[in-house]
Amino acid sequence: MTRLSELGERKAIERFAGVFSAGKDVSVGIGDDCAIVSPTWSQDTDLVLTSDAVLESIHFRPDADATKVGHKALGRCLSDLASTGAAPAWGLINLVCRQDQDVERLEACCSGAEELARRVGLSIVGGDTSRGDSLQLHVFCMGTVPRGTALLRSSARPGDSVYVTGSLGGSIHGRHLSFDPRIEEGLWLRHQGFASAAIDISDGLAIDAGRLAASSGCGILLDGSKIPISANVASDDPAQRLRHALADGEDYELLFCVSGNKSRDFEAAWRQRFELACTAVGTVQDAAHGTRYLELDGETLRPLDGAGYEHFRDHTVE
Amino acid sequence: MTRLSELGERKAIERFAGVFSAGKDVSVGIGDDCAIVSPTWSQDTDLVLTSDAVLESIHFRPDADATKVGHKALGRCLSDLASTGAAPAWGLINLVCRQDQDVERLEACCSGAEELARRVGLSIVGGDTSRGDSLQLHVFCMGTVPRGTALLRSSARPGDSVYVTGSLGGSIHGRHLSFDPRIEEGLWLRHQGFASAAIDISDGLAIDAGRLAASSGCGILLDGSKIPISANVASDDPAQRLRHALADGEDYELLFCVSGNKSRDFEAAWRQRFELACTAVGTVQDAAHGTRYLELDGETLRPLDGAGYEHFRDHTVE
Repeated sequence: MTRLSELGERKAIERFAGVFSAGKDVSVGIGDDCAIVSPTWSQDTDLVLTSDAVLESIHFRPDADATKVGHKALGRCLSDLASTGAAPAWGLINLVCRQDQDVERLEACCSGAEELARRVGLSIVGGDTSRGDSLQLHVFCMGTVPRGTALLRSSARPGDSVYVTGSLGGSIHGRHLSFDPRIEEGLWLRHQGFASAAIDISDGLAIDAGRLAASSGCGILLDGSKIPISANVASDDPAQRLRHALADGEDYELLFCVSGNKSRDFEAAWRQRFELACTAVGTVQDAAHGTRYLELDGETLRPLDGAGYEHFRDHTVE
Repeated sequence: MTRLSELGERKAIERFAGVFSAGKDVSVGIGDDCAIVSPTWSQDTDLVLTSDAVLESIHFRPDADATKVGHKALGRCLSDLASTGAAPAWGLINLVCRQDQDVERLEACCSGAEELARRVGLSIVGGDTSRGDSLQLHVFCMGTVPRGTALLRSSARPGDSVYVTGSLGGSIHGRHLSFDPRIEEGLWLRHQGFASAAIDISDGLAIDAGRLAASSGCGILLDGSKIPISANVASDDPAQRLRHALADGEDYELLFCVSGNKSRDFEAAWRQRFELACTAVGTVQDAAHGTRYLELDGETLRPLDGAGYEHFRDHTVE
């Protein structure tokens, strides 16, 4: 018998994924941020599918503002859609709650999700309610991309520049409940054709950069001195601040790659289009180099492994 | 403050539904078994969307066979798709489980879902895992129908005959974990054009017949002596047996209506096509007659209200 806590989430998902077989219309299946399917009944459109959950005492405190809980629940799925460049379309929400839950709090959860849904053009069209010991929202979202154009985490190439939107770390102090999923930015990146690969930063820059590199069969080198650190990071110590930006998780920013020879054009176009910061933080390398970051001393290289948040194991966020 | 237990699931869902606004491409939104959307990027196909959940100690015992738990979790969504006549396409599963959960049990859940998915041509393409106090599976499914042809619960007309597939009651003794969702039957009913309206029986014949009638703005009269009672109903007392068939829930059979002048052709065609029993159990009436059933004495009419299972209130299944 293998306990989930021993195995960790990623390895467990690999085992579950081994159970399922996908039909011919499935372009990207289990293990990515989103699944991508190519319906035979459409000529030109792919569906992008994702699901996520927020649970009381894990993803939000029992006293958290309910509208923000709803916002976060939907926002996590939208961040996944954003990483593929998808246009949000429809969503469903499964609620789990105590029998004595006040309905007003649940309505506030719905309002928080609806306010965000409306902003991005998504319709919440259904769901389910069940009794449980604590509040949970399971959200399922669909979006669309022109066929074959979804941004993937698996298509980075050595020599690509690595960018992040916004700034990282310290999300636990409030931003994890109020972040803006980067839908517009994802749509623009896909449409402009600049990004070679993309992922959203949900489990921390270190883990998610490592995932993008692994999926692409590449290495990655991040420059610690370039990583934009959020004003939400409380520490004054530079090394601690970097550690938060690498490891904290729940940033819901985009991490993406741009071919080296396009990066100047890309940066100019981005500044023209968005006020949001976009920062070059590293380079995609050959797989042989592994996944590393350069310390603030400008000399020490450290592995990205071991920094960051993973469910079930080394749990640090509460 | 209103507690969920005071309000009941249906009224709570009505309140949540009031929060959400649907886009123009949403044909059927919150409150039905499934949502139906008509993508602008397809000429001829509607997407049918549904989600459902099974929770330990509510929908299955902690010692239940895990492959059956996975079967049930997916099967409930498929039963919703069947009621619309949809062809299953893609699904996602959110797992919630304890940190010390053995991975083999979770794999067995996945296998149970996959075995059923393969039988009906559905690909499970993604999902999520979270830590919680007990095992839960939240399933999201998508299916397709030719545009505008989905069977709805809202289109029954006075004079229609009311049919049920299979037999009802006593599902708690095991069938609730091993039922066959009526996908083939739903596809056939939609394709042949016999059914004027349909719903799946998940909360019990009494409740679901009442829902179909209410959605259609009609009354309904069921004949107690005609209702097919499952061999799983343990009682020998005829009145008790009828009560089980009306109220037990988790039958996952189809309840549907056929225009009175088509019912003879329909019955012959059904017998030609399926071995599964299909039984005429009543008639759609004008709304003024309300929703009632005829007792076994052939004289006493009783209201359908008050029989059957609803979450959060009058909880009887464990």
